[in-house]
Amino acid sequence: MPEKKPHSSWRAKVHEIIYEADTPEGKLFDIILLIAILASILLVMLESIESLDEKYHTFFNISEWIITVLFSIEYILRIVSVKQPIKYVTSFYGVIDLLSTIPKYLSLIFVGTHALVAFRAIRLLRVFRILKLVRFLSASNHLVAALKASRAKISVFMLAVIIITIILGTVMYLIEGKEHGFDNIPKSVYWCIVTLTTVGFGDITPQTPLGQIIASLIMIMGYGIIAVPTGIVSAEYSKQDDKPLKNPNTASPLPTHPSKVDVNSQICANCLADKHKDKAEYCYNCGHNLHI
Amino acid sequence: MPEKKPHSSWRAKVHEIIYEADTPEGKLFDIILLIAILASILLVMLESIESLDEKYHTFFNISEWIITVLFSIEYILRIVSVKQPIKYVTSFYGVIDLLSTIPKYLSLIFVGTHALVAFRAIRLLRVFRILKLVRFLSASNHLVAALKASRAKISVFMLAVIIITIILGTVMYLIEGKEHGFDNIPKSVYWCIVTLTTVGFGDITPQTPLGQIIASLIMIMGYGIIAVPTGIVSAEYSKQDDKPLKNPNTASPLPTHPSKVDVNSQICANCLADKHKDKAEYCYNCGHNLHI
Amino acid sequence: MPEKKPHSSWRAKVHEIIYEADTPEGKLFDIILLIAILASILLVMLESIESLDEKYHTFFNISEWIITVLFSIEYILRIVSVKQPIKYVTSFYGVIDLLSTIPKYLSLIFVGTHALVAFRAIRLLRVFRILKLVRFLSASNHLVAALKASRAKISVFMLAVIIITIILGTVMYLIEGKEHGFDNIPKSVYWCIVTLTTVGFGDITPQTPLGQIIASLIMIMGYGIIAVPTGIVSAEYSKQDDKPLKNPNTASPLPTHPSKVDVNSQICANCLADKHKDKAEYCYNCGHNLHI
Amino acid sequence: MPEKKPHSSWRAKVHEIIYEADTPEGKLFDIILLIAILASILLVMLESIESLDEKYHTFFNISEWIITVLFSIEYILRIVSVKQPIKYVTSFYGVIDLLSTIPKYLSLIFVGTHALVAFRAIRLLRVFRILKLVRFLSASNHLVAALKASRAKISVFMLAVIIITIILGTVMYLIEGKEHGFDNIPKSVYWCIVTLTTVGFGDITPQTPLGQIIASLIMIMGYGIIAVPTGIVSAEYSKQDDKPLKNPNTASPLPTHPSKVDVNSQICANCLADKHKDKAEYCYNCGHNLHI
Repeated sequence: MPEKKPHSSWRAKVHEIIYEADTPEGKLFDIILLIAILASILLVMLESIESLDEKYHTFFNISEWIITVLFSIEYILRIVSVKQPIKYVTSFYGVIDLLSTIPKYLSLIFVGTHALVAFRAIRLLRVFRILKLVRFLSASNHLVAALKASRAKISVFMLAVIIITIILGTVMYLIEGKEHGFDNIPKSVYWCIVTLTTVGFGDITPQTPLGQIIASLIMIMGYGIIAVPTGIVSAEYSKQDDKPLKNPNTASPLPTHPSKVDVNSQICANCLADKHKDKAEYCYNCGHNLHI
Repeated sequence: MPEKKPHSSWRAKVHEIIYEADTPEGKLFDIILLIAILASILLVMLESIESLDEKYHTFFNISEWIITVLFSIEYILRIVSVKQPIKYVTSFYGVIDLLSTIPKYLSLIFVGTHALVAFRAIRLLRVFRILKLVRFLSASNHLVAALKASRAKISVFMLAVIIITIILGTVMYLIEGKEHGFDNIPKSVYWCIVTLTTVGFGDITPQTPLGQIIASLIMIMGYGIIAVPTGIVSAEYSKQDDKPLKNPNTASPLPTHPSKVDVNSQICANCLADKHKDKAEYCYNCGHNLHI
Repeated sequence: MPEKKPHSSWRAKVHEIIYEADTPEGKLFDIILLIAILASILLVMLESIESLDEKYHTFFNISEWIITVLFSIEYILRIVSVKQPIKYVTSFYGVIDLLSTIPKYLSLIFVGTHALVAFRAIRLLRVFRILKLVRFLSASNHLVAALKASRAKISVFMLAVIIITIILGTVMYLIEGKEHGFDNIPKSVYWCIVTLTTVGFGDITPQTPLGQIIASLIMIMGYGIIAVPTGIVSAEYSKQDDKPLKNPNTASPLPTHPSKVDVNSQICANCLADKHKDKAEYCYNCGHNLHI
Repeated sequence: MPEKKPHSSWRAKVHEIIYEADTPEGKLFDIILLIAILASILLVMLESIESLDEKYHTFFNISEWIITVLFSIEYILRIVSVKQPIKYVTSFYGVIDLLSTIPKYLSLIFVGTHALVAFRAIRLLRVFRILKLVRFLSASNHLVAALKASRAKISVFMLAVIIITIILGTVMYLIEGKEHGFDNIPKSVYWCIVTLTTVGFGDITPQTPLGQIIASLIMIMGYGIIAVPTGIVSAEYSKQDDKPLKNPNTASPLPTHPSKVDVNSQICANCLADKHKDKAEYCYNCGHNLHI
C-alpha cells in the first residue's frame, strides 16, 4: 500500500507502459499480459483434469506460483502508477485482478480456497480491453451500438419469453406431473426454457399425448419467435450502418467506409478516463496532461 | 355482489388508484400489485418443491391465505369501483382474477383443487399492463406492430410447417415403425416437430439408414426454413421503423426517434376503454368524464 | 373410365363447382373437401394408435370406407368434368388423389397394403390450393417470390453445408471410431448434420477430447452460418417488398400496401391452366371460354 | 517427376482440357472428374460400413485401385501440363490430390494407413471449383462478399462467445462438479458451447437448482445472441445487393439484376493465375499467352 508521493518520472513511465498502447513498450506489455492471462486460464483448465493433475502436479503448482507472483507485481504497479489508487482498486477490473491473485496465497493457510483460482477466467474480459487498444474495436463498435439501441426492445421480448415459460411450465407441471420427471414447477419452467430455446437436452421429455401436443406448440413457438430478436438486431444494425446516410446536407451516395472514429488508447493517469480524442493533450474529464 | 349505488367520491378515488397510474397513489398501487403477483407466483413455485413444502408447510399455507385475502379484496374493489361491474367480471382479466383466488377457498371444501392455484401464473400477464402504464411500452409498440403486420405471412408459413411435419411424420412412421420408438403417427409427427424445430430431445431417434437420411433432410430443411419467419419479421420490423419516412410531405432524412405516441394511462370508469389521448378529459368511447 | 362425350351443361356445372371458387357452390365444395381431407388424415392418425384401434376398429373401418367412397366419387367427377382427363390423371394431384383412394380397395385383396393409406397425408398439400382460392394467398405470394429468388443462393449454401458435413463427418469417424458410436462414415456424417443444424439428439456424442474440440467447432460453425440463409431470405424478402419502389415514374413515398394482384380462381376446363386475370373471359393459354 | 521440356503442343492441349472449361473436352473432363470424386467418396463411405465391407470386400478393393490409378494419372498430367510444376505440387489442391492417392499405395507396404484414404473427402472442395467453371458462381459471389465484409465483426462476436463460454463453463464446473458429469473445466466449457449454440446433446445436464438457473440464463442468452451474426450478415448482404445503387452517376432506380461479372474459366499455364477477364488473351499476372 504505497503512500501518495509526488508523481515521479518512473511512475509516469510505468503508467505509460501499463495503461497505454501507443509506445512500443506499451504494446509489448499488452501482448505479454495477453499471453500471461491465456496461460493462466489454460493452467486452471489443465489442473482441473484429474489425470493430468496427478502426473504434473508439481509443474502445475510451480507455474501457478510464477503466474501469481507476476500478476501480483502487475497489480502493485497498477496501484502505484495511478494518482488515485482507490479508484482502480474499487473498479471492476481492480476487484477481478485482486480476486485472481489472492486465492493462491489463501491456499497456503486455508484448504479448499484453491477452487477460487477459477475467478481468473473473468480476467479474460481484459482481452477485450487489450484488443480494443490494438484498434480491433472498430468492427465491434457497430455491434455494441446496435445492441444498445435494441436493449429496451430485447428486454421486453425477454420478459415476454420468461412470462410465457412460467405459465407454460406451470401448465406442463399440472399435465405431466412427478411421474414423468416434471418434479416441481421450477424444474418444469427450466424444461420449458430448454424447449423454447430449441436446446432440447432430452433429460426430461413429455410422455402424455396432451403434454406432447403442448410441447409441440412450445417448440413451434420457440422456432418462430426467434425471429423477433433477430429482426430487431437486424434492423438496428442496418440503421447503425446507415447512420452517415442521415446527414441532411448530403443527399448523394453513401460512403462505404465511415471515416475512422477517434479511439485513442491513452488513459488519464489522474482520473482513469479513456476514449480521449486522437490528438488530445489534456484529459477531457479532469484537464490533467495526458503525456506526463 | 354490490348493488348499483350513485358513483360516490370514494369509489371514484378507488377507481383512480386501481385503474390509473398518473397519481402517486396509483403508481404505488401498481408497484404493490406487481410485487404481490410475483410473490404469489414464487409461493406457488416453492410449494411445488416437495422437500421445501414438507419443511415450511405452515409458513407457505399462511402466506397463501394472506395473498388470497389481498387478491380477494382487490377483486372486490375492482368490481365496486367500475360503473359496469359485469363488464369487468366477464373480461379476460376478470376471469383470471377470480380463478386465481377461488381455488384456495375451494380447497377448504374439496381435496385436490389446490393445484388450480397454478392458474395464478396467468396473472403474470398483468405485468404487461402494469409496465405499459409505466411507459415501458414504447419499445414494444414497434414489435407488436411488426408482429401484427406479419401475422398472415407467419400463419401461412406455420401452416406449411404443420403440413410438412404431418407428411414427413407419416413417412417416418412407415419407415421406422414401432420397434424404433415411432409408435404411431401422432408420436411420429411429434418427433418430426421436435426435429424440424431443431430442438432434438433425442428420446426418439431414427435407427434405419433410410430413416436417418430422411431425418437429415428434415434437419437441413428445419435449419434452412427458420430463415423464413426471421426474414419476414426482419423486413416488417424495418418497415415499421421506417414509417416516419413515408410521410409524403417530408422528403428529408428520418427522425431517429419518432415523436412520442399518446399513451394515456387513464381507464374510463364507465366503459373500461383505455388508450385515451394524453390530454383527454372525456372518454373517446362513451363520453364519460375521465377525471370524476 | 368415361368416354369423350360432348361438353354437356351438367359437366360444365360440375367443373364450375369442383375447379372454381367464385360461386357459392364452389366455395361450399372447397370447404367440404377441406373438412373431408382433415377428417381422413385424423382417421389415419388415430388408427395408427394401437390402443384406440383395438377399441374402435369397426368405427374406424366404416369411416374409412365412407371417406374412400367419397374421394372415389370426387376423383371420378374430376375426370369426367375436364375436357382432357389424361392431363388430370397424370398430374401431381391426379396421382396423389388416386394413391389416397386405391389402397383401401387393394386391402380387400392383399394384406399389408393398408399402410399405404398414409399416402393420404400428401393430400394435405391440396389445402394450399383451396386456401389460395379463398384469397389467402396474397400473403404467401411474397414469400414464394423471395424463396424463388434466393433458390440459387440457398442451393450453393446447402451444397457447402453438405460438403462440410461429409468432410467433418469423415474426420470425426477417424477420431472417435466405432467404440464411441461413430460406426461408419455415413453415420458419422449423419451425426455431423445433427450437430451442425443444432438439433443435437444426443444418441451419439463425442467422448475423446479431440472429438469434443472438433464438435465444438462444428457447433459454433453451425450456430454462426445459420445467419447465411437467414440473411439471404431477409434481403430477398425486403427487395420483394420494395418492388413497387422501383417504378421509375414515381419517385415519391412507397405505397404501404401494393395494389392487389390478379388471382383469379378460375381453372380452364380445357387445359387446366390457372391464374387467369381477374376479368378474363378466355383462357390465356388455350383460348377456351372460361365460363362455359 | 518429369523434367522441364519445351512446351510441346500436346501438353498445351492437356492443359486446356484439365485447367479450362471453355472447350467441349474441358467440360467433359470436369464432369468426369466430378463423377470420379463423388464415386471415390461414396466408395470410402460404403467401405466404412462393416457389414457391406465383409460382403463386397473384393469389389471395393478393385474399385479403389481403379480410382487410385485414375487419380494418379490425373495428378501426373496436371504436373506435366503446367510450366511450373512445383507451384502446383505445393498448392493446396496439389497436396490434397497427392494425399488422396498415396495412402492406397502405402497400404501395400504398411498396415493401417488405409484409413487415410478418408483424406479423399477433402477433394470434394474441388466441386466448388468445377461448379464455378460452370458459371454457377454468380449466386455465391454475393454470399462470399457478404461473408468477407462481415469477417471482422463475426470474429469479434465469436471471440466474445468463446470468452463467455470459458467463464460460464468454469462457473458451472464450480457449481455442478464431478458428481454431475462436469468432470473438469474443458469438459464444462464443451457443455457450455453445446448449450449456448442450442445444440443440447443432453449427455451432460445440470442437476442442482443453481446450475439449472445458470443453464437457463446460458440458453436464453444463446437464443438471443444468435440474432447478432444473423443481423450482421443480413445487413452486409443487403449492402452487397445494393452496391449498384451507390454509383454516384445514376440517381435512378436500381437495376434488379447486376450486369454479369467477368468470370473467365481460363487458368494461365505459366503462373496458374485464374479469374482473367472474359476476353483476355494474355495473363494479367505474368503476361503469358492464355491460349497457347
